[in-house]
Amino acid sequence: MSISTRLTEKLQIKHPIMLAPMDLVADARLACAVSGAGGFGMIGGGYGDEAWLTRQFDEAGDVRVGIGFITWSLARNQRLLDLVLERRLPAVMLSFGEVAPFAPKIKQAGALLVCQVQTLAQARDAAAQGADILVAQGAEAGGHGVARGLFPLVPAVADAAPGVIVVAAGGVADGRGLAAALMLGAEGVLLGTRLYASREAAAPAEAKERVARASGDRTIRGLIFDIARKNVWPRPFTGRVLSNRFSDQWAGREDELLSRQDEIAASYAEARAKGDFDIAAVIAGEAVDLIHDIPPAAEIVERMADEAAELLARAPLRYGLGASAK
Amino acid sequence: MSISTRLTEKLQIKHPIMLAPMDLVADARLACAVSGAGGFGMIGGGYGDEAWLTRQFDEAGDVRVGIGFITWSLARNQRLLDLVLERRLPAVMLSFGEVAPFAPKIKQAGALLVCQVQTLAQARDAAAQGADILVAQGAEAGGHGVARGLFPLVPAVADAAPGVIVVAAGGVADGRGLAAALMLGAEGVLLGTRLYASREAAAPAEAKERVARASGDRTIRGLIFDIARKNVWPRPFTGRVLSNRFSDQWAGREDELLSRQDEIAASYAEARAKGDFDIAAVIAGEAVDLIHDIPPAAEIVERMADEAAELLARAPLRYGLGASAK
Repeated sequence: MSISTRLTEKLQIKHPIMLAPMDLVADARLACAVSGAGGFGMIGGGYGDEAWLTRQFDEAGDVRVGIGFITWSLARNQRLLDLVLERRLPAVMLSFGEVAPFAPKIKQAGALLVCQVQTLAQARDAAAQGADILVAQGAEAGGHGVARGLFPLVPAVADAAPGVIVVAAGGVADGRGLAAALMLGAEGVLLGTRLYASREAAAPAEAKERVARASGDRTIRGLIFDIARKNVWPRPFTGRVLSNRFSDQWAGREDELLSRQDEIAASYAEARAKGDFDIAAVIAGEAVDLIHDIPPAAEIVERMADEAAELLARAPLRYGLGASAK
Repeated sequence: MSISTRLTEKLQIKHPIMLAPMDLVADARLACAVSGAGGFGMIGGGYGDEAWLTRQFDEAGDVRVGIGFITWSLARNQRLLDLVLERRLPAVMLSFGEVAPFAPKIKQAGALLVCQVQTLAQARDAAAQGADILVAQGAEAGGHGVARGLFPLVPAVADAAPGVIVVAAGGVADGRGLAAALMLGAEGVLLGTRLYASREAAAPAEAKERVARASGDRTIRGLIFDIARKNVWPRPFTGRVLSNRFSDQWAGREDELLSRQDEIAASYAEARAKGDFDIAAVIAGEAVDLIHDIPPAAEIVERMADEAAELLARAPLRYGLGASAK
């Protein structure tokens, strides 16, 4: 039993589940595991390390995977787009920046244009640029994002871009989330944090374990970690991470942190290198409450698809709508 | 065709839809309209105007409605609770504060204890105090709330309080939202902003029209309006309103606003009295994108219930799960 939607048709996949192209974390191994399980893997183009990207695509070989770029970063190194389009990927995802400079080239190369959006204004713009798939990302997401909550954003994006396939991201970590996303008007989901806590994700074991243990009450969206790692993004993007000793210490004191950035960045970089996650950030979203294990990615995809299929299949009977389900 | 859940059974209602007990806005007229349509109306106990409350309950007469209190405010005038418990209401809702001082009395009076929560910690506490219904409120909500997004909060609350009935609030404004809430593990929804924009809501016509026209990209959660009206709530509660000229002017300058509070509060109060909503706040949530009209409350309830029932009833066929729906 698997869920068919316009997304599964468009991407020619079995389950309407996409991998968020997390910088460095979503490498060939993780992307191939997701695609191999019937979802759609996307390699994290991140800040654009050309050698790393080439290695990932060589490693992925013939497996159908896509790529996702940080758009404002891609704008500084447009060569990367040519590099991946030569590979004839099925889909290219743009997040966090102007779509217009890249959309025509992506579409001309025959790849599907996937645009992650965080506001209705962005959704309308991306649809006007020819986006085939709009990923509506809620502020609950781990890592960078903006401010709007996923629940009302998904139907609003669906209404604002009639006909365009919508995918829900940020806050989805189990079959309940997939089923709910479909009811809201999405055709699938994109998973970051849930697949971060998978066996294949290229992340430290201790960081994955913290995700599996964390409470969603203890995540924060802000600038603290971007300041500490000297990587503050253009407005309006902020990042969500698990709270830790470092963030507790600096919350509400971002100005002071900025003024002491050089000094603190050095010790922060050291903590990252050592894997000291009382200081270094674990990037994760509010859905950590729903994550309690670190299984293979394929198990995550299949479990989520099965759970959602069962919820949807049983809904008429469960809610006393049986007679109308015929 | 109507949706049966544990909430409809528990409250003995037809549709799993509750009215948020909005201060002054949710008066007897609106609450009775919602209950009359098969939902569950709750009068807004607000900051506790005893004469107003007495009038509302007299007016409601035999219609089955509940009441909702701002808990930290109720703590300052506990007499109000006795006043409403004498009326033998089916349910009393507590939001924004300590449940423990009031829970035993509510339960002893035979009313259902409904607790609105914004974090998992609050959910666990309210469940331990004997809550019959937990309203999980997302930060998308209009008016006061906290920080967590509704989408991942609902399943997390359901998991944290097994057996307790969960209701989703904040960001729900149509049948897609109701169907999604059920998939996430809720048994119903609670509507604020959507029922604010109803014919019966006790709110200015101009404010309702602004809700019906607004974009969810243009709401903000913060302290600006609470400072301007000299009603800053205890931490961690902030309020979401439609952005307007006043909020654009003061965003990021809350400290200055506080330091000039007396001066500005006077002109702000004047703007409120005049209904100048370029200055005075219209309290509304991110779901405004989904609201385009100001119909009778009964029409909102019935339309939402019908749309959700149809989405759920058709789900097996729509997603190719037909064979399993038997």
